[in-house]
Amino acid sequence: MNELEKLDNGDWYYFIDKGVANRKAQAAKLCQEFNSIPATEPDKQTKKIKQILGSYGKNLSVQSTFTCDYGKNIHVGDDFLSNFNLTILDVAPVNIGNNVMIGPNVDIYTVNHPMTAQGRRDYLGKGTPVTIGNDVWIGGKVTIIPGVTIGNNVVVAAGAVVTKDVPDNVLVGGVPAKIIKKLEQ
Amino acid sequence: MNELEKLDNGDWYYFIDKGVANRKAQAAKLCQEFNSIPATEPDKQTKKIKQILGSYGKNLSVQSTFTCDYGKNIHVGDDFLSNFNLTILDVAPVNIGNNVMIGPNVDIYTVNHPMTAQGRRDYLGKGTPVTIGNDVWIGGKVTIIPGVTIGNNVVVAAGAVVTKDVPDNVLVGGVPAKIIKKLEQ
Amino acid sequence: MNELEKLDNGDWYYFIDKGVANRKAQAAKLCQEFNSIPATEPDKQTKKIKQILGSYGKNLSVQSTFTCDYGKNIHVGDDFLSNFNLTILDVAPVNIGNNVMIGPNVDIYTVNHPMTAQGRRDYLGKGTPVTIGNDVWIGGKVTIIPGVTIGNNVVVAAGAVVTKDVPDNVLVGGVPAKIIKKLEQ
Repeated sequence: MNELEKLDNGDWYYFIDKGVANRKAQAAKLCQEFNSIPATEPDKQTKKIKQILGSYGKNLSVQSTFTCDYGKNIHVGDDFLSNFNLTILDVAPVNIGNNVMIGPNVDIYTVNHPMTAQGRRDYLGKGTPVTIGNDVWIGGKVTIIPGVTIGNNVVVAAGAVVTKDVPDNVLVGGVPAKIIKKLEQ
Repeated sequence: MNELEKLDNGDWYYFIDKGVANRKAQAAKLCQEFNSIPATEPDKQTKKIKQILGSYGKNLSVQSTFTCDYGKNIHVGDDFLSNFNLTILDVAPVNIGNNVMIGPNVDIYTVNHPMTAQGRRDYLGKGTPVTIGNDVWIGGKVTIIPGVTIGNNVVVAAGAVVTKDVPDNVLVGGVPAKIIKKLEQ
Repeated sequence: MNELEKLDNGDWYYFIDKGVANRKAQAAKLCQEFNSIPATEPDKQTKKIKQILGSYGKNLSVQSTFTCDYGKNIHVGDDFLSNFNLTILDVAPVNIGNNVMIGPNVDIYTVNHPMTAQGRRDYLGKGTPVTIGNDVWIGGKVTIIPGVTIGNNVVVAAGAVVTKDVPDNVLVGGVPAKIIKKLEQ
């Protein structure tokens, strides 16, 4: 397998490989183009973001700026809205359900590196998907780390760092995020 | 009342209403224009930021980038300085006193959404003001959530998430922010 | 001493001094130029970032956007990679070793302000260096405050706020960052 194939397979890959870097650069350039569209031209913004994302449903609204490192691994359902400055490292798939709102300055990561110095010197990366259910509100400045699954009807409080799976029908918050209270279904 | 009137009244409003979206887009576009001014032209930057803000005092310095969703609800006193990448969701008023310094990558929010899935499916938002006193230093990467009032002579440590009112003469920090120590008046 | 000399000397300086403000504006403008380079032109990006940094080793990769307030105080070793939206307030030196990776939306600060209202009204700032060792991985959304030294073979978990020195061979995380576990050498 070449490095992009290893990446797509969820194996350790060499992240400064030319093919991997080119894919990231192409995505970053499309995001730069998206970010240069005036906010008063939402139709142009939506047309461009549709070129970037892997798939999307009806009613899509992404505010500028938006940054990702592939785009094609981002799948959003119906009624997806994200606010200013969303960053998604979509080395692995980021699957997002219906009726999801994302506040400003949120980060979603799917790539990890080794915990050994030698592994990092070897420029190794590994993708692990993130999954977000339906009816989820991700507050501003939230960070979601690789491998996390968030259930349905969840609110993530502003500034939380989500490091573990989140069940349905809860409000979570803090660093690391913990359940603050149950929400009515 | 139309949706903008409900918004301005602090009632639940339909946030994908065309009037609401247009107001946000106009503000975001002005911010994009501000952000495209070279940093070596501070007079041009100041002229533009004065077009964006609701009111300001003497000595105003806002570094690029700056992002807000209305602008006219942001009121700053004398000697206001903010560093790189300030994000203010000023659906409701953000009233800031004199001699306030804001570090880089700070977020101030005034808009909430329902805690029920149905309420969010209905695209409801509601503004609640944020108030910041005199002689306040907001450290870098701080987040302030809707409804918070910060007193006079307060320092908010880097990375704090301020979820409750903060009295005068204290240093606060952490997620959620707690009083770390009293400060001399 | 003039204000820039006081700044460089690690003394309290008047941060709205014209010389200080000009230095920051020049750096911010170079960063704006860097940020406007298409991501598909990495050679141009690398050429420009080399104009901004104080020194660098072999294999340098900085993703856009990048923001700093001087640049000449940033010294990175061999094999330095940083992801999207790194903010460095390099009023004082930021010395970074070899084989260091930095995730997206990381902030490194070297400037403090007085804890007294009067000191802040007098627009005083003071630089204190940050030092990062070899083989360090700084996760996304991390904040490092002035004066911190991070050892060799360290991983800083996403969203951490590093307020104290970090020894060799550990994983740290949280707000404020604490040792989570020891890492093998």
